[in-house]
Amino acid sequence: MYALAADIFPLCRSISGDGVRQTLKILQREIPALKIHEVPTGTPCFDWEIPREWNIRDGYIIDPAGAKIVDFKKHNMHVMSYSVPVDREIGLEELQEHLISVADRPNDIPYATSYYRERWGFCLSHAQRQALKAGAYRVKIDSTLAPGSMTYGELLLPGETEQEVLLSTYTCHPSMANNETSGPVVTTFLAKWLSGLKRRRLSYRIVFIPETIGSIYYLSRHAEAMKRNTIAGFVVSCVGDDRDYSILPSRQGDTLADRVAHHVLKHTRPDYKTYSFAYDRGSDERQYCAPGIDLPVAVISRSLFEKYPEYHTSADDLSCISPAGLAGGYTALKHIIEVLEGYCYPKATTLCEPQLSKHGLYPTVGAQRNQPMAFHDMRNLIAYADGTKSILEIADELGRPAWQLQEHLDAVVNAGVLTVSAGPQAAAPKI
Amino acid sequence: MYALAADIFPLCRSISGDGVRQTLKILQREIPALKIHEVPTGTPCFDWEIPREWNIRDGYIIDPAGAKIVDFKKHNMHVMSYSVPVDREIGLEELQEHLISVADRPNDIPYATSYYRERWGFCLSHAQRQALKAGAYRVKIDSTLAPGSMTYGELLLPGETEQEVLLSTYTCHPSMANNETSGPVVTTFLAKWLSGLKRRRLSYRIVFIPETIGSIYYLSRHAEAMKRNTIAGFVVSCVGDDRDYSILPSRQGDTLADRVAHHVLKHTRPDYKTYSFAYDRGSDERQYCAPGIDLPVAVISRSLFEKYPEYHTSADDLSCISPAGLAGGYTALKHIIEVLEGYCYPKATTLCEPQLSKHGLYPTVGAQRNQPMAFHDMRNLIAYADGTKSILEIADELGRPAWQLQEHLDAVVNAGVLTVSAGPQAAAPKI
Amino acid sequence: MYALAADIFPLCRSISGDGVRQTLKILQREIPALKIHEVPTGTPCFDWEIPREWNIRDGYIIDPAGAKIVDFKKHNMHVMSYSVPVDREIGLEELQEHLISVADRPNDIPYATSYYRERWGFCLSHAQRQALKAGAYRVKIDSTLAPGSMTYGELLLPGETEQEVLLSTYTCHPSMANNETSGPVVTTFLAKWLSGLKRRRLSYRIVFIPETIGSIYYLSRHAEAMKRNTIAGFVVSCVGDDRDYSILPSRQGDTLADRVAHHVLKHTRPDYKTYSFAYDRGSDERQYCAPGIDLPVAVISRSLFEKYPEYHTSADDLSCISPAGLAGGYTALKHIIEVLEGYCYPKATTLCEPQLSKHGLYPTVGAQRNQPMAFHDMRNLIAYADGTKSILEIADELGRPAWQLQEHLDAVVNAGVLTVSAGPQAAAPKI
Repeated sequence: MYALAADIFPLCRSISGDGVRQTLKILQREIPALKIHEVPTGTPCFDWEIPREWNIRDGYIIDPAGAKIVDFKKHNMHVMSYSVPVDREIGLEELQEHLISVADRPNDIPYATSYYRERWGFCLSHAQRQALKAGAYRVKIDSTLAPGSMTYGELLLPGETEQEVLLSTYTCHPSMANNETSGPVVTTFLAKWLSGLKRRRLSYRIVFIPETIGSIYYLSRHAEAMKRNTIAGFVVSCVGDDRDYSILPSRQGDTLADRVAHHVLKHTRPDYKTYSFAYDRGSDERQYCAPGIDLPVAVISRSLFEKYPEYHTSADDLSCISPAGLAGGYTALKHIIEVLEGYCYPKATTLCEPQLSKHGLYPTVGAQRNQPMAFHDMRNLIAYADGTKSILEIADELGRPAWQLQEHLDAVVNAGVLTVSAGPQAAAPKI
Repeated sequence: MYALAADIFPLCRSISGDGVRQTLKILQREIPALKIHEVPTGTPCFDWEIPREWNIRDGYIIDPAGAKIVDFKKHNMHVMSYSVPVDREIGLEELQEHLISVADRPNDIPYATSYYRERWGFCLSHAQRQALKAGAYRVKIDSTLAPGSMTYGELLLPGETEQEVLLSTYTCHPSMANNETSGPVVTTFLAKWLSGLKRRRLSYRIVFIPETIGSIYYLSRHAEAMKRNTIAGFVVSCVGDDRDYSILPSRQGDTLADRVAHHVLKHTRPDYKTYSFAYDRGSDERQYCAPGIDLPVAVISRSLFEKYPEYHTSADDLSCISPAGLAGGYTALKHIIEVLEGYCYPKATTLCEPQLSKHGLYPTVGAQRNQPMAFHDMRNLIAYADGTKSILEIADELGRPAWQLQEHLDAVVNAGVLTVSAGPQAAAPKI
Repeated sequence: MYALAADIFPLCRSISGDGVRQTLKILQREIPALKIHEVPTGTPCFDWEIPREWNIRDGYIIDPAGAKIVDFKKHNMHVMSYSVPVDREIGLEELQEHLISVADRPNDIPYATSYYRERWGFCLSHAQRQALKAGAYRVKIDSTLAPGSMTYGELLLPGETEQEVLLSTYTCHPSMANNETSGPVVTTFLAKWLSGLKRRRLSYRIVFIPETIGSIYYLSRHAEAMKRNTIAGFVVSCVGDDRDYSILPSRQGDTLADRVAHHVLKHTRPDYKTYSFAYDRGSDERQYCAPGIDLPVAVISRSLFEKYPEYHTSADDLSCISPAGLAGGYTALKHIIEVLEGYCYPKATTLCEPQLSKHGLYPTVGAQRNQPMAFHDMRNLIAYADGTKSILEIADELGRPAWQLQEHLDAVVNAGVLTVSAGPQAAAPKI
């Protein structure tokens, strides 16, 4: 994953343009079935419309002494995203109105965009900005902002049921690593793993979109189907560093996505952080959880956006993520998906306890002291299988990881003492 | 308010009689629309009937030495309320059976009544009582207890909707200040403020009644309409001293009245006290919350009845309340009413987030670090406006004062991104 | 109770056989109406069938020196329950495969059974086992395992309503005292007390059954009626020692049985222990609470099975229980039953407060400070009697023992201000 991250990191992505197309082409090497879509400028979607396409070739500032002091070719964050072309000589005072720096990260280039108002700007470190002297500066941005299209990727993996899981990540950030090279990389590898599974109970909808406008467009075309089928969804973002594990819950806070995410991290990373939808949301969960959309979507992150010092600066580079960091994000999501794949409603086939020894499920000499947990798990699975509770609810009631109960399912289903179904069943067997 | 309190404080009020009439006449100076009703003795109401009317002109005890030692004209609490006439000479032993004092407040006259059994009595300080010597005492009470009527005041203020708020206070206590000169005074000024509003979304039912029999009578005539229209009600009592802020919740405990009261005091007076309906109730909330009545009515107080040392003694005089104390009670209730006036169910007009910059609601350059709370409030108002949650529920979920969210409502409604309605709306816009 | 315990303690009980019959005959001395049922071997019941009947006359081991070292006649736990006959000479090595001892209780004989796989075995102390020397041993078990029947006792006590309470205890353990001589003894005395009551509002179903197969059989024949009528049930087990009071809740955890049990012990034995259905269940609550059965049944114990050191060993002898221990278990259950007998839904007969003084329920001179709790209880009973809440719910809301509220019921019902009914009533009187 780290190698793939290194491949796509240098590209200059924005909410449209060739950087996005190149990124998706690289991801296709891992998941050839990834479909790349183009949406024409001006296409309406809810309260929005697809903006013009932006592409950039070069951009720099030449100082009064003739030195190229700010150079897009050295770092693509030096030009504010969606800057219109400019080629002028201006004084320092006017230049200042087009400069963006952040005082509390004096050595880093900040990340800035102006998608919905035409302007141009340069981003630079605060230290560099403060060293600027009066004089005539040459500013040059060789960009185009013109009718074109917005590009996104989509991979639909059908399963045994129409119930589907959404994985959503975004491809609109330039050269930053945790936010957001890690999301597309981890999502690509999850897609690759899912593509290779012999059996998928669930279907998967995996999208690589520009943030905000991408999810709004996608929802404007697919929300109805998604509302019908989605049992859980996850925004995959900031999943590459080595620090926290984080959940930013859905607006409702207790959807299946939230419950499975908390369940997995509680049992595997008990020191994970839970953020607030009201005060910490920031990515496409804003759209997936909007009133009337109300999809069960949470954000899964290592160190969440806005919550780590390098966030939205040039310091969020490849040193900010690691193979282990990416693997941690991948594994958490894989585990979550495994629990969703095993999600079911078990129901006893007989009234009262089955005679376990008859079914080969019980030691024949009683010795009830200090039974191992596996014994409790199997017996509890049977004792709580009333058809109305999912295995996740049973696991939560028992304080046990769902996957450890799921390990026993095959045995007891094969022994004929339980059946399982995808949804709640009418109360257990009639008397 | 303190001046009005000083005007009505000296009057000898009871559950009927001229003291009540004079009190209501004085309140009419501030709220001329106050309607004064008379209910004839013997009128049945639920398990009760209106008692005879009581009036008193004089009452005293002359001691064996000829000194007038207990004198209604010096303090109207010296005669037990509803005392029948007496004019006799009796020995100390028999007199003792007619004396009421309280040992733990030895210098104060206690407050006593005998509405429903004919008797006579004098109240005096325990110190004075203990100094009494054997001998012949002259006892004289010049009162009448005769068919007449019970008097109460009522002010109905119509609003844009039939949904109404009840304010209920009582006018049956003689010369005590916090309990209960403050209630009628604060309620009068709230009524005056509400009468002068250009626009009232809600209707208001404001009653000045004798405690218990007054609310029972009033409910026997109006409970059906009140149950249909009342969204919240408050017993206004003990709202004049400078100590606590208190809520005595409704029996149900979580009505809109309770929720708004807690919400306002939590954000403005976080050290307020919450009492128990079961063990601390004592005023007309007993009737408003009785089984089958079940109105959403809580008590709002500064220092609640029974919970301050001067309670129900002559020490609860004008020094026990203050302009600031009354203003505190008034302001808390005004705030509560303002939240009720602004109570609504906001609903987004578009699916997904609206494009805030298009509607002039968003800074056009992204700079997401450390946004001010006003930014969160406006965005959260939109993000949570699903039509099914009131602004109070949203505010509680966000941990924010409802009135700070309400400040943004006009802006976003005018921008066309939200609508509001008085009750829950069907789920947000269809896809 | 202790004398009865001493009478039945010595008998060799199992899930079938003459020891059970003799035990039930002894219990009939106290409750002559106890009906003894026989269920033939092979009778199917849910996933099970009634096993063959087991009886034993003798069993011993003679060591190489000719000494009878393990002797059923000295302690009936020396032979594993349901051991098939044997009469052989074998070496120590083979003998070891048939010996059962417990290392952590080195001086006690452990309790073992093999109901569903044919084998034979001896139980002995670990100390004795370790002292065995190589050589030829004579093993002899004079038992029969043959078609016959399973024996159980049943006492049905009809009441004024069909609503019934289940008491279930078990008669399948050999000579152990707390688990399980105490259960049949305490249940017998509860049955005796209930039989003698002049008036029973509720009906009672009291069963003395072998654990597991007994409750499974009984449910296979009676579950439908029990599901229709049972408002609460209790497994009575381990109710004779002097240590804990314990509740093992039903699977649902909040049935009426659970709520009354917690209520009584909270107010009488506040340091009682609450165990986990998932991890501590062990007796017939496993069947009564199985999916599809779902009866409201909790276990009431002193020191719960598995939770005290002598459990399932010969150390659980008559010294492990005491008259006071049995009385404690009896009293807790009697109290629980009394609350169930008094369980009702009170409803006010008038709107607003009744005029208490008119009904002789109120002091006629107001003196509201420091009212005694009885005053609060009576007033609260009336104030909360809205017909939708049981007296238990009211008591819990008030933080008061239900039986103290129940003490006032007769007075207020006789005064005509309340009525009571067995179930929830439509909302209180119409306006």
